[in-house]
Amino acid sequence: MDAASVGAEALFTANNVWMMLATALVFIMHLGFAGVEAGFTQAKNTVNILFKNTLTPVIGLLTYTFIGFSLMYPDAEPGFWFAFDGFGIVPRDNGIEAGYADSAYTRWTEFLFQGMFAATAATIVSGAVAERIKINAYLIFTVLFVGIVYPVIGGWKWGYGALDAMGFVDFAGSTLVHSVGGWGALAGIIVLGPRVGKYVDGKVIDKPGSSVPLAVIGVFLLWLGWFGFNGGSVLSGDPALTSLVLVNTSLGACAGAMGGYITGWVVFKRLDLGMVLNGILAGLVGITAGADVFTYGESIFIGLVAGVLVVLSAITLDKFKLDDCVGAVSVHLTCGIWGTLATGIFGEGVSFLPQLYGVLICGGAAFGAALIIFFLLDKTIGIRVSREHEEEGLDSHEHGIRGYTIVYNE
Amino acid sequence: MDAASVGAEALFTANNVWMMLATALVFIMHLGFAGVEAGFTQAKNTVNILFKNTLTPVIGLLTYTFIGFSLMYPDAEPGFWFAFDGFGIVPRDNGIEAGYADSAYTRWTEFLFQGMFAATAATIVSGAVAERIKINAYLIFTVLFVGIVYPVIGGWKWGYGALDAMGFVDFAGSTLVHSVGGWGALAGIIVLGPRVGKYVDGKVIDKPGSSVPLAVIGVFLLWLGWFGFNGGSVLSGDPALTSLVLVNTSLGACAGAMGGYITGWVVFKRLDLGMVLNGILAGLVGITAGADVFTYGESIFIGLVAGVLVVLSAITLDKFKLDDCVGAVSVHLTCGIWGTLATGIFGEGVSFLPQLYGVLICGGAAFGAALIIFFLLDKTIGIRVSREHEEEGLDSHEHGIRGYTIVYNE
Amino acid sequence: MDAASVGAEALFTANNVWMMLATALVFIMHLGFAGVEAGFTQAKNTVNILFKNTLTPVIGLLTYTFIGFSLMYPDAEPGFWFAFDGFGIVPRDNGIEAGYADSAYTRWTEFLFQGMFAATAATIVSGAVAERIKINAYLIFTVLFVGIVYPVIGGWKWGYGALDAMGFVDFAGSTLVHSVGGWGALAGIIVLGPRVGKYVDGKVIDKPGSSVPLAVIGVFLLWLGWFGFNGGSVLSGDPALTSLVLVNTSLGACAGAMGGYITGWVVFKRLDLGMVLNGILAGLVGITAGADVFTYGESIFIGLVAGVLVVLSAITLDKFKLDDCVGAVSVHLTCGIWGTLATGIFGEGVSFLPQLYGVLICGGAAFGAALIIFFLLDKTIGIRVSREHEEEGLDSHEHGIRGYTIVYNE
Repeated sequence: MDAASVGAEALFTANNVWMMLATALVFIMHLGFAGVEAGFTQAKNTVNILFKNTLTPVIGLLTYTFIGFSLMYPDAEPGFWFAFDGFGIVPRDNGIEAGYADSAYTRWTEFLFQGMFAATAATIVSGAVAERIKINAYLIFTVLFVGIVYPVIGGWKWGYGALDAMGFVDFAGSTLVHSVGGWGALAGIIVLGPRVGKYVDGKVIDKPGSSVPLAVIGVFLLWLGWFGFNGGSVLSGDPALTSLVLVNTSLGACAGAMGGYITGWVVFKRLDLGMVLNGILAGLVGITAGADVFTYGESIFIGLVAGVLVVLSAITLDKFKLDDCVGAVSVHLTCGIWGTLATGIFGEGVSFLPQLYGVLICGGAAFGAALIIFFLLDKTIGIRVSREHEEEGLDSHEHGIRGYTIVYNE
Repeated sequence: MDAASVGAEALFTANNVWMMLATALVFIMHLGFAGVEAGFTQAKNTVNILFKNTLTPVIGLLTYTFIGFSLMYPDAEPGFWFAFDGFGIVPRDNGIEAGYADSAYTRWTEFLFQGMFAATAATIVSGAVAERIKINAYLIFTVLFVGIVYPVIGGWKWGYGALDAMGFVDFAGSTLVHSVGGWGALAGIIVLGPRVGKYVDGKVIDKPGSSVPLAVIGVFLLWLGWFGFNGGSVLSGDPALTSLVLVNTSLGACAGAMGGYITGWVVFKRLDLGMVLNGILAGLVGITAGADVFTYGESIFIGLVAGVLVVLSAITLDKFKLDDCVGAVSVHLTCGIWGTLATGIFGEGVSFLPQLYGVLICGGAAFGAALIIFFLLDKTIGIRVSREHEEEGLDSHEHGIRGYTIVYNE
Repeated sequence: MDAASVGAEALFTANNVWMMLATALVFIMHLGFAGVEAGFTQAKNTVNILFKNTLTPVIGLLTYTFIGFSLMYPDAEPGFWFAFDGFGIVPRDNGIEAGYADSAYTRWTEFLFQGMFAATAATIVSGAVAERIKINAYLIFTVLFVGIVYPVIGGWKWGYGALDAMGFVDFAGSTLVHSVGGWGALAGIIVLGPRVGKYVDGKVIDKPGSSVPLAVIGVFLLWLGWFGFNGGSVLSGDPALTSLVLVNTSLGACAGAMGGYITGWVVFKRLDLGMVLNGILAGLVGITAGADVFTYGESIFIGLVAGVLVVLSAITLDKFKLDDCVGAVSVHLTCGIWGTLATGIFGEGVSFLPQLYGVLICGGAAFGAALIIFFLLDKTIGIRVSREHEEEGLDSHEHGIRGYTIVYNE
């Protein structure tokens, strides 16, 4: 092999290694979501939550194989609203395993990275609707939402569809992943209604989570996973851009933690670990739309605001008796919108109006689709467990085992 | 440096980075095994399980340093049944740190990657024999099994020994790692007998695990680790092959989960999270022998079958009163055999008969060796704790502390 | 682009990918510390511990952004004792994103890798002072210790300051990170005094940790993180050196485990998982100063001694009624000193005296500074919670929630 070919092969290999490891990091976000959701919800529903969270990436990856990938990245004219390459993982001209000509990774890597992304959109819904949704209803929703709704919307921007043509910018998915998932979550909790005993005589009743350590494990794994989520969204190992993105991502998370910490202290007068943890996630979601164009100072500002917003959003939802078990709507929808708009304000070369249109169009599509799916499921198989089951806990009824068996004395 | 040398150094660096990170991922599988085994076994034995699982990679890596590496990858003529390079990590002609000429990574990287692999074979045994084995007996078994049995058998194929000459194919160890470990586990539970109170009046009594979240953490970490286990088995960062392997591996896991889910539902009429989790592991084990030669469609099929087999195998073992605390034999032995034979059926350029011979020869050697070791240990120091200790739990007797101290009210 | 440029870009990309992933691995050490500390401390203080451990990397990274990075790596003449580049992340001549000329990674990567390192020094303190320190006092200490003390001392060696000129060698921070953190921890437990009921009538009373599995998760994640901590300290992906470092690091950990296991057995006559786990950490800390210059045999020896020392050190501290909740001083200070001196004894081309001077100078500075900070905090806002709060547990008083809500029967 001549010197130029060796160098090109080396660069392609290094880029592809980065993308494969970014894929592994996005994969582990699914364990992060499982930790956050099982940790923040009641011990009597732990197995149920984990059952959903285990099956979500499974369903996500399988539907993405059969249909999603071809819906999201079709071989279509730019500017489309709907296009489809056919079922399965369809090879391209330069073969399914190559990519020297026009990309920094193989088509297999592209598929797996994007497939791991896809499943996160449904996982976001999972936490919000926990502790009262029928498992079959959730699984059918996930098949439709990850298999069709998410990839169609994602293709509008990342597949060079209509939103891309409009000048909409969303680096790693504040809108396309997080707010899409957040809209699905909002639709779910509207159709489901709040948990029994959550809102009583105008008061909001706390439902203590089963395990704070589990929630902390989840949040740290999500932060770790975001190294791949945002870092991999550069779509190569380009040193300058990937490393800038990682710095902005982590500083966004840090500032979000401080925002949640301070706001939690001001509002609740306590050292509220839940708000710090959700502040971290809020900062991460907020930074995601423009992690490649913000300065590190802007990243701190955007994260800080996200950390404040996530607390105020959670309080607001409770005012409307919208019962979100883990704060998913506040983290992913509220801060996803904030991050997308902030990219239009601060991002160099990004205009505000396309950002606003993107938020509205994706929001309308995701919320509308989710509402229709949940409504139809409710009218057919039903989406809510019986009051008796809910009060006793879903684990003993649907799964026949319990999440923990510990009863030692301290 | 001239352009060609820079390019070659870059390629070697990128390949070696991939292999080092694959090594890190295989390492974290040991935490995955610890999670699965501690999560699926009773809370009164948690410290005991964790003690074993912590020492297993420690012993594995140290024995591999002293003897295993030289047994498995000796500088011998191809086709051998036994060869040995001498104690320690023996340098090669081109030096211990180089590798430009004939490999994509340094000899240090090779040692560490293969050493992390080695310890997994013993970890598989650990879960099956839990809750009743004497810790010293287990540790001595591990020294012999990882130090000698595993590397001798592994050398037959991966060290260019007799099975390799025969045309046997095992990409990342469905047979050489998983079924070897599974045979060790089967030998262990035969010699040990079932736990007290496991089989009563013809009924199989459930022994609820201490923590389902811990088991879920374990399974997700194992899936993550398999990115390195299979991805690293390409032995370079070759973009086309590594990315194909990762896609097949993850789709095998997903299909295994569906297989376990459906079979669990049909057989037990419940949403059985344990079967979904073991289905994931079953799919991963099944795909491992031919992850580099299967199409993605074949990978889904092989994973699905593995997910069915793991449930049927567990039921069958119980029929014979073979008490495997975590399903290790069903996951690693049954599905390891299935994956190896499937490679002979579907793998392009792979013949069936050498696959069958490989399964039988490795099985005979691993099972025979493990049976002899356990039998001799039983006749000398004894391998089973007293009935009193077993009923009270191993933690308070052997370790003097308990796994958990939690007693809060929900 | 010509062949030489492509090759150079490829090499830079591969090196930078390694450094970014090393950064991610160091980041996850913060979850490792959280696991160890929450697992080894009492369940009534779990939320408090996790609150501190979540905010520590947040504060660490933010202070490093504002001031620490410029204190530690200033653009100053070699041999300095104090220098400062100005607030924020200050660009260099060749731009903030480049690095072809003189390094193997971008300045962004350098900042983030070193920033993740910085926060670990404070985390070490966190575990020792747990269960009785006021959270505000801890947070202010962290701001000062990570923001100023750690980077000033670190600059003496890694920023080409006075200790570097003296010939002091500390590859990845046995002294600069671990013993600095350990000195801070020692200062903290001296000023704080022991927990209520820890030393009664000349006896040392055990305070059982909330969850052994959590501690095991923590230790495995720390071991994993050390792949990046030591492997990234090569400051490139150089294949020979990085892979040697990883082998030495893991063998140090294994030997440390054996040292802790055997010493625990000899001293306490039990299979002491706590000593095995701390032995692993001890081996890792011990190997860190010279992981790039030791042979693999020396690494095993150094780890083994570290595993013995950590047990003896813990016993000695208890004799002086120095109450370290998780053994942080024994792990990080005792073994940090051992590793630094061992580098002077075994490391090729390293002299003993500069190592001793480095230990003394860094120790004096870190211990003195920490003592002053804790003393001033004690005289102003107070650093210890009331006896009532301590006995009831910090979670219910300061945070209003509890770490676990589990009360199932086994």
